[in-house]
Amino acid sequence: MNSNYKTLKQECYEANMELNALGLVIYTFGNVSAVDQDKGIFAIKPSGVPYEVLRPEDIVILDFENTIIEGKLRPSSDTKTHAYLYKNWTDIGGIAHTHAMYSVAWAQAQIDIPIFGTTHADHLTSDIPCTSPMSDDLIQGNYEHNTGIQIVDCFKEKGISHNEVEMILIGNHGPFTWGKNAAKAVYNSKVLETVAQMAALTLQINPNAPRLKNSLIKKHYERKHGKNAYYGQ
Amino acid sequence: MNSNYKTLKQECYEANMELNALGLVIYTFGNVSAVDQDKGIFAIKPSGVPYEVLRPEDIVILDFENTIIEGKLRPSSDTKTHAYLYKNWTDIGGIAHTHAMYSVAWAQAQIDIPIFGTTHADHLTSDIPCTSPMSDDLIQGNYEHNTGIQIVDCFKEKGISHNEVEMILIGNHGPFTWGKNAAKAVYNSKVLETVAQMAALTLQINPNAPRLKNSLIKKHYERKHGKNAYYGQ
Amino acid sequence: MNSNYKTLKQECYEANMELNALGLVIYTFGNVSAVDQDKGIFAIKPSGVPYEVLRPEDIVILDFENTIIEGKLRPSSDTKTHAYLYKNWTDIGGIAHTHAMYSVAWAQAQIDIPIFGTTHADHLTSDIPCTSPMSDDLIQGNYEHNTGIQIVDCFKEKGISHNEVEMILIGNHGPFTWGKNAAKAVYNSKVLETVAQMAALTLQINPNAPRLKNSLIKKHYERKHGKNAYYGQ
Amino acid sequence: MNSNYKTLKQECYEANMELNALGLVIYTFGNVSAVDQDKGIFAIKPSGVPYEVLRPEDIVILDFENTIIEGKLRPSSDTKTHAYLYKNWTDIGGIAHTHAMYSVAWAQAQIDIPIFGTTHADHLTSDIPCTSPMSDDLIQGNYEHNTGIQIVDCFKEKGISHNEVEMILIGNHGPFTWGKNAAKAVYNSKVLETVAQMAALTLQINPNAPRLKNSLIKKHYERKHGKNAYYGQ
Repeated sequence: MNSNYKTLKQECYEANMELNALGLVIYTFGNVSAVDQDKGIFAIKPSGVPYEVLRPEDIVILDFENTIIEGKLRPSSDTKTHAYLYKNWTDIGGIAHTHAMYSVAWAQAQIDIPIFGTTHADHLTSDIPCTSPMSDDLIQGNYEHNTGIQIVDCFKEKGISHNEVEMILIGNHGPFTWGKNAAKAVYNSKVLETVAQMAALTLQINPNAPRLKNSLIKKHYERKHGKNAYYGQ
Repeated sequence: MNSNYKTLKQECYEANMELNALGLVIYTFGNVSAVDQDKGIFAIKPSGVPYEVLRPEDIVILDFENTIIEGKLRPSSDTKTHAYLYKNWTDIGGIAHTHAMYSVAWAQAQIDIPIFGTTHADHLTSDIPCTSPMSDDLIQGNYEHNTGIQIVDCFKEKGISHNEVEMILIGNHGPFTWGKNAAKAVYNSKVLETVAQMAALTLQINPNAPRLKNSLIKKHYERKHGKNAYYGQ
Repeated sequence: MNSNYKTLKQECYEANMELNALGLVIYTFGNVSAVDQDKGIFAIKPSGVPYEVLRPEDIVILDFENTIIEGKLRPSSDTKTHAYLYKNWTDIGGIAHTHAMYSVAWAQAQIDIPIFGTTHADHLTSDIPCTSPMSDDLIQGNYEHNTGIQIVDCFKEKGISHNEVEMILIGNHGPFTWGKNAAKAVYNSKVLETVAQMAALTLQINPNAPRLKNSLIKKHYERKHGKNAYYGQ
Repeated sequence: MNSNYKTLKQECYEANMELNALGLVIYTFGNVSAVDQDKGIFAIKPSGVPYEVLRPEDIVILDFENTIIEGKLRPSSDTKTHAYLYKNWTDIGGIAHTHAMYSVAWAQAQIDIPIFGTTHADHLTSDIPCTSPMSDDLIQGNYEHNTGIQIVDCFKEKGISHNEVEMILIGNHGPFTWGKNAAKAVYNSKVLETVAQMAALTLQINPNAPRLKNSLIKKHYERKHGKNAYYGQ
């Protein structure tokens, strides 16, 4: 394909295909984007195109004001949420959105996912936040843009960092995840879905299961992400 | 094959095979039909033939009075239900019936599936209706025909449109879905099964999970199906 | 292979492999047998041989007194249960035993599986029986033989026919199923597992879900198995 | 590869790949080791290396004091737990650790898995132990080493043998399993996951499900592992 954004489109395409390969989406129920913060543009899946027929050249390029820079197809209906996050969190490289089963179940239950174990603590130190339903005004307004505002504000209110907690549940809707690049955002979607299922099963076995103690939360997060991390190569 | 209905048989065959590929049926527990409303005939899976050996030429052609027009095999035992729906809802193009796990579980629980989230609202704006058990008289009578009556009457009583709500649960039995063609009917069977599982898990996590608020129901349905829809291409 | 029982061994081998292909067993957790009632012998899986390496010539041939007629390997540890059933129910052709997930869960719960819907009624008209735990005397005695006695006695006590109800749960253990041949026994294992999962999910959604009404039980069973059956070819 | 430990590395590599093939791990959430007790060394998966790219030559060789003997990569972060177990239980040949779904759910629920049926009794005669959370002191100290101490002490306190009970749940974390070699340790991880799911479903169907009676526990364990065992070849 002729394009000024070949690499970014390819990264975006591969991350979208991985979302599908991991069993996190059916039909067109999800989307991944990848950003080039220097150029102020991002690549995102076109709306309503099944993964089976998606090609790298179908990926749409936009700026943070949602103007299409390159691409013949209409971008994902969630595009404005992606744009808002990239504009406000300038250190992230990719965003993923799915309707994965257990992530959606918690979002519909409107409950933060409690940190019950080390699988969770290996990735983040707090409960996974779930936003409250948006006000009617905001829903009837610029809905997808306002979803972005809702996410950023939720992190401010709770005093948590989007670098440490790379995932959120939109109440009644589903998960958004992000990371240093699109592949990491997809990885986080899979981790979230796994942790969400583990937590649901934990409560089924023991409705009074306690949260993980602070010392273990710290230990597991630090050994993977701390200054003296000894996990990985 | 020599047939006056090659295209319709092929459409019906492919939709039946897709039902199987999507994991919605085991053995012979399901059937799909496709209609030609102009000719007043429809194509349906033969009864009790496993998907592994099903061929396009095995598909049976009938009119709306259940007379076989073409085909050597006996049609699906649910044929009269399909015929009744085609006769009464002249704007639908295909119908699917399955015994998919979570759809059947809700049908056996005899509860409408509450609209808990946007995955549901992306496809329809009301709870997914579940019919009450049929009266003994009707069961002992023309059972499959009466199932058709039950479906059409249920929509009239609830004041919902079969164009907006393309699915129903028959209490104690399982789901019927439909759409503009057979492929869309199968798509709706998969959506229903997904939404049914999400709703069951939601209630497991939070037995008091609230229904989706009206503004969000409207927003999500409109952005996909409304006059100013901006989902898809 | 040189054998007087090539056909029976092949039938038995294929049914065992199908059990594995259907996802009803892991490792060596299951066995299928096929009988030749005229000769008074049956073929059964050897004990502890993984499906990945099982060959038709490994199948063991025994008479109803559990004497090995042909075969170099030790037969399944459940062999005496099979022998007892063949000796007492002379009209069945095959038996299957698994540790499939939901069938075992109901067996461990020690509860008959209630007839909640038409998927169940398409195959049998009563709840799926679950035996009470065996007395200590019988366990310490000829255990597998006594399991056979337990099954036959359970059907006598409940006044149900093994021709109509081709399956049972052994309390705390798991399912046995049978049929006119080994393939039908395996089919019944898959149906049982499906119905067991549907029933568990039904109760999870609605702990007060009612049993299927008698008129529907009769209708669905009769249309598939009655004198005027119109299901299948 | 040039190595003094080719066979051990190969055994370790194959067992790790089997863990993945059995669906017990995603990404890098697990590790298997194999020991040579005569030489006082063991082989273990390198930390954070995905199964898709893992090669036999990547396996790391260490002694029981956690000194790397051969290998360029950093060993699994859980290495010290493996070392401690090999040092104290000199008759085991392999160890596996996973974050498999149902095993983790029970670990997070902080409940021993009750022995509900014969699938469980075929493999061990007691409930599957779940350790209490570690004290803050031990967590902040030599954490993975202390996890090893916790496991060995748990078996001493409960008076159970690691030869009979080849598995444990670390509270809030997940399962460790072992056996005569690495393949058997992996087998036990799969058995544990299966039994964990069966037990969770059993309690969902019947919250008052009784434990298996002692005579049946003994019978099933003895027929597979006792002096007069008649299971297997």
